[in-house]
Amino acid sequence: MGRRPVKPASEGRRTIGIDIGGANLKYVCTDGNAASYPFAMWNRSSELTSSLVDHLSQFLPASSWAVTMTGELADCFLDRKTGVEFIVDAVCEAARRIGSQPSFAPEIRFYGVDGRFHRADDAKRLFEVVAASNWHALASQVAKTIAGDATLVDIGSTTTDIIPLRKGRVATSSMTDFQRLVGQSLVYIGCRRTPVCALVDRLWFNGASSRIMNEWFATIDDARIVLGIEPEHPDDCESADGAPRTVARSANRIARMIGLDQTFVSVEQAAKLAVQIMDSAKREIHSAFDAIDQPRGPIVISGHGRDLFDVPEDREVIDLSTELGGEISRCAPSWAVANLWADRSKAALVRKGRPSCDVS
Amino acid sequence: MGRRPVKPASEGRRTIGIDIGGANLKYVCTDGNAASYPFAMWNRSSELTSSLVDHLSQFLPASSWAVTMTGELADCFLDRKTGVEFIVDAVCEAARRIGSQPSFAPEIRFYGVDGRFHRADDAKRLFEVVAASNWHALASQVAKTIAGDATLVDIGSTTTDIIPLRKGRVATSSMTDFQRLVGQSLVYIGCRRTPVCALVDRLWFNGASSRIMNEWFATIDDARIVLGIEPEHPDDCESADGAPRTVARSANRIARMIGLDQTFVSVEQAAKLAVQIMDSAKREIHSAFDAIDQPRGPIVISGHGRDLFDVPEDREVIDLSTELGGEISRCAPSWAVANLWADRSKAALVRKGRPSCDVS
Repeated sequence: MGRRPVKPASEGRRTIGIDIGGANLKYVCTDGNAASYPFAMWNRSSELTSSLVDHLSQFLPASSWAVTMTGELADCFLDRKTGVEFIVDAVCEAARRIGSQPSFAPEIRFYGVDGRFHRADDAKRLFEVVAASNWHALASQVAKTIAGDATLVDIGSTTTDIIPLRKGRVATSSMTDFQRLVGQSLVYIGCRRTPVCALVDRLWFNGASSRIMNEWFATIDDARIVLGIEPEHPDDCESADGAPRTVARSANRIARMIGLDQTFVSVEQAAKLAVQIMDSAKREIHSAFDAIDQPRGPIVISGHGRDLFDVPEDREVIDLSTELGGEISRCAPSWAVANLWADRSKAALVRKGRPSCDVS
Repeated sequence: MGRRPVKPASEGRRTIGIDIGGANLKYVCTDGNAASYPFAMWNRSSELTSSLVDHLSQFLPASSWAVTMTGELADCFLDRKTGVEFIVDAVCEAARRIGSQPSFAPEIRFYGVDGRFHRADDAKRLFEVVAASNWHALASQVAKTIAGDATLVDIGSTTTDIIPLRKGRVATSSMTDFQRLVGQSLVYIGCRRTPVCALVDRLWFNGASSRIMNEWFATIDDARIVLGIEPEHPDDCESADGAPRTVARSANRIARMIGLDQTFVSVEQAAKLAVQIMDSAKREIHSAFDAIDQPRGPIVISGHGRDLFDVPEDREVIDLSTELGGEISRCAPSWAVANLWADRSKAALVRKGRPSCDVS
């Protein structure tokens, strides 16, 4: 759990933003608490409901859960429709288990790339709108509250989002994952999970250019650890070979990419390989950035992979982690979706004298 | 088990060739029997000894086991030294379990890229020579018995070997995996396991160029199944998402690479994506082929991924599966190492009047 409540909210108006990703479950409450848990959807989808119950029970009861997702694309689901249905049902079931009395059951809404919130049934029907919506939630909230004319560059563990914002709104017509891959506002490169074999075809070693082994032997995480960008985590074995996330083991994993190993590749030599891997990732992200039509405002940088993006010298930078604090910024889409819903409810309350329920 | 014995051999002279790979265990006996079993070393190394015992018990007792390997590079092993030691010990333990009386215990030798056979202790000491040796065994035997001046192109499930043969011998100075990746006689592309995200950065779909999702959502196997090059295997779920190897599911897996799925991508559309994936693999293999200095003799083509290589029109082709029969050609390195050892033993017998034991 993160920081203590920063702006105590009555239970009646407390909203928890929930970001159900393919590799993590992230939560931010409007009372200022935040939490993030690794969750490999493709292996553990059957545990989703119980994990949600476990995690959400650690927050104070909230009147609303605002949900955004990308986890529906995990290949444990036949297709995105099935994935959205599964996730929506899991959230509703988690709410039933947590809120045993109707008065305690949270109101649940699912955010869509149409910028609106949808009830469970509508979310399932509009699965294309609700799928892969977390980038839109973050971009909308940043546009509303941080910088109305800007470019959001959000580099997470798996992907990079590059979103132009104009006049306080998301300014792209690319909405689905496919449209965004075509338009390059989605680059499927992040700072943790991206496999080395997807980043480079060859690596220079000892003056020779080697083809690589197309195996999941190493990820970009290993390059960042070897280069000291990411600290060592000796107790964490969430790596390609299941060995610890240490410099020595990361160097060994990288060496494997060219048919070698620690016996023949020193950490210093592995660092030279790591630089090539990082350079390739940076090049791809920059090429996408350059292809996107953007306003001349600041760049709002977000996510823990910001080292993968060298900000152009002529652009002002706003660091979302400075704005929000590290804990919440690690769960930025959850922060966004919680506040988008809370603000919307507040506005509806002012407008109609009661909370709005029919939003879809 | 494969064909019945074609040239019955007395137990005294029967040799089983064993190819211990990273994804398969393959066996060929000089009596003509052959067998191949999937074996994911990276997940199942602890079962190696018992699997060897199970598989080898199905062959008639042999006086010799001739072993070649590539499985030592699986990332369940810290490094190749550890991998070679583990595999050598597993083979010796399997022999102990099978041959309860010394007279039945097979003589065991490990093939090296020096073209020699090594006893267990020497194999462990010379781990660099014994590691990744199966290409050399096959190339040597082809050079000796099929075509002395030729190019061997062997395309398996995971890799492609392109080996020049001259005057009945392997004619390359690249011996280790790293040297061969640099020299391009090893291309880490095969017909089954290669992930799509290692083959393409973008795919054209409906007139648009899409970046791809760098996930292990699909492999080249899916492209071959969708295109009808590989038949459907509805009962086989050894696929990226664990769903059956059918056209419909392969098309769905390929669609995922660009953020879509079966809801939006027909099998016909997936076939257009599959062609791009196959073209990329073929281009890489051809570019390596063109980079290798070769004799003007025939091309000996081997392995079940031969569709990935369009033979240049001016080169004669010898198909190893026609020469050996389908069953044995699927286990070609096992066939090679068995016969290399058997012929060597025979020669020694003639020379010295008794079988030779000290070969390293």
